[in-house]
Amino acid sequence: MDLYGVAPFGQVRWACDETAVAILDQTRLPNEVVELTLESIDSVEEAIKSLRVRGAPLIGITGAMGIAALANRAAREGLAGSRFRELVVGWADRLAAARPTAVNLAWGINRLRRVLETNPGGSAELGRALVEEANRVLLEDAQMCRAIGEHGVELLGPRDSVLTHCNAGSLATGGIGTALAPVYVGHERGLELHVYADETRPLLQGSRITAWELQRANVNVTVLTDAMAGALMSSDPPNVVFVGSDRIAANGDVANKIGTYGLAVLARYHGIPFYVLAPTSTIDTDTPDGGHIPIEFRNADEVRCGFGKSTAPPDIPVWAPAFDVTPADLITGIITEHGICVPPYSESLSHLIRSTDE
Amino acid sequence: MDLYGVAPFGQVRWACDETAVAILDQTRLPNEVVELTLESIDSVEEAIKSLRVRGAPLIGITGAMGIAALANRAAREGLAGSRFRELVVGWADRLAAARPTAVNLAWGINRLRRVLETNPGGSAELGRALVEEANRVLLEDAQMCRAIGEHGVELLGPRDSVLTHCNAGSLATGGIGTALAPVYVGHERGLELHVYADETRPLLQGSRITAWELQRANVNVTVLTDAMAGALMSSDPPNVVFVGSDRIAANGDVANKIGTYGLAVLARYHGIPFYVLAPTSTIDTDTPDGGHIPIEFRNADEVRCGFGKSTAPPDIPVWAPAFDVTPADLITGIITEHGICVPPYSESLSHLIRSTDE
Repeated sequence: MDLYGVAPFGQVRWACDETAVAILDQTRLPNEVVELTLESIDSVEEAIKSLRVRGAPLIGITGAMGIAALANRAAREGLAGSRFRELVVGWADRLAAARPTAVNLAWGINRLRRVLETNPGGSAELGRALVEEANRVLLEDAQMCRAIGEHGVELLGPRDSVLTHCNAGSLATGGIGTALAPVYVGHERGLELHVYADETRPLLQGSRITAWELQRANVNVTVLTDAMAGALMSSDPPNVVFVGSDRIAANGDVANKIGTYGLAVLARYHGIPFYVLAPTSTIDTDTPDGGHIPIEFRNADEVRCGFGKSTAPPDIPVWAPAFDVTPADLITGIITEHGICVPPYSESLSHLIRSTDE
Repeated sequence: MDLYGVAPFGQVRWACDETAVAILDQTRLPNEVVELTLESIDSVEEAIKSLRVRGAPLIGITGAMGIAALANRAAREGLAGSRFRELVVGWADRLAAARPTAVNLAWGINRLRRVLETNPGGSAELGRALVEEANRVLLEDAQMCRAIGEHGVELLGPRDSVLTHCNAGSLATGGIGTALAPVYVGHERGLELHVYADETRPLLQGSRITAWELQRANVNVTVLTDAMAGALMSSDPPNVVFVGSDRIAANGDVANKIGTYGLAVLARYHGIPFYVLAPTSTIDTDTPDGGHIPIEFRNADEVRCGFGKSTAPPDIPVWAPAFDVTPADLITGIITEHGICVPPYSESLSHLIRSTDE
């Protein structure tokens, strides 16, 4: 099994003999590369809520690895029986609610719930089984990233430019990313690609994280502010827009970082293909359309003084959704590890889900 | 003459007995309200280049008032004859090049050149004449703002919401603003308006300045990041988009703060009227279309560390145009002090210019 690309930037790993997880604290990039070891459910929850780890796939992985590691720790410390199971289920319920929009967090945690439900063993055996399952979540994610990259790279020419928003790269996943996976695969294959990275206010995942990881990988990258994307498309249009997703509804509507919808409208206006890249775990067939996706609102101070400096009057009202919904009809294709789905998505996505369930 | 609204926030005024100008240092808003007295051509140029004063009309006013005050000072200090005239013309040439995109800066300075060319008097008389002409530039601007507001308010209903970008308010002009003038006039008349202010990266003129001045005037204002405008239009659409302009070409193409073009595309997609509000001095009939407007590029560090804190890898390439061009066909109307021009702008704008030249 070729696991090339598993956590290439140390975004998440086991620590303390599989009784904790270590993460790269993404809030401190690009200035400081700091690893944090999470040894309690409070610290795992805080890391997810504060976006120390972020990106839909990566918070699913971190949630699963965090619960598994702490369950393993509790088992080694002698907790057993129903008290062990109740504790772990409580952690699962709590973490699943840490961030509402991305479906991958609940999905990753549900992988562990199924272990708890189907494995009748004692706490020591369960601890090991949970760690093994969380490890599979991580490794499968890395494999999915690579498969997404291999499908997506077929769309790229030898000197293409790609516009992306937020970070759907390595640091959003356990592997080489989703939206950036075709770029990494293309770079390996010798394509001279150029990525334009929207800085992505308010938390600047584009300029802080996408720019950082692409630069480290020697991929050409240029940062622009979010409001420059329209002028770029008009004056020097990128060949394609690639974005990730936090949840894909059954009809193909896509929730992703705030600003994605505006980019999709601009791409349509300029005739630029607009692709969403995400693992099938992002597809939520229980959500019929984008109107049913809960949208998280962030604290107003992320806009008013997000850089440790006041950038607006301190009490000014702020409208700060973390995500927006791009309707299916603006999306050229949805690229998963199984290939490229095209409209009508209600058919292509349900076919995909049926065939992967078999 | 009703001069209501002249520099209501102290954005620019004469100082030191008309031998200097005082400005509100807009780079320090909203945290500090600091007035700077500019007593040398270096400090006037620095204030314009560093955006301590900004906004197309206001830099025209400040350029004119700065040159006039310093000329007046030189005359009082005894400089005379051709040396006086050469010095002042040199200042005019230098300041006119301080920022390339806004046509108002050259326009304001050209008002003083005409005084120099047509007034044969000595330096003392010329100094006074220059101050009087610069004062007319200021007062006319305030009157133009009010007239723009009175035309624009006709478009607003009693509880309308207005989306704006950057700052085309009082602090961009010598009066009550251009894009915000209808809001101020409507507020006076008892309309319960609500302004959505894009924060406007990289320099945050929306969250720092528009939000500050509207809050001070007790107008309801909500800040959003630039990339949230699409989601706002989709979920809770504003009734209208009002923006200012740095230069309007003869065919109606409009240069304005980077991000304006993207807003115009989004407004068109959502069926929201999109208006440009500017004095006729912004119309440059020597520029046939937007392709001929020089676009200023700003220093990359305004994007990489614009908050006094590194927000991107320090050496990352940045694409940072200060302005973009919105083509005439995306603009519902152009509101000047003389009324509302509608397409085809090549006719309506040239008719306007001809009638005001008469």
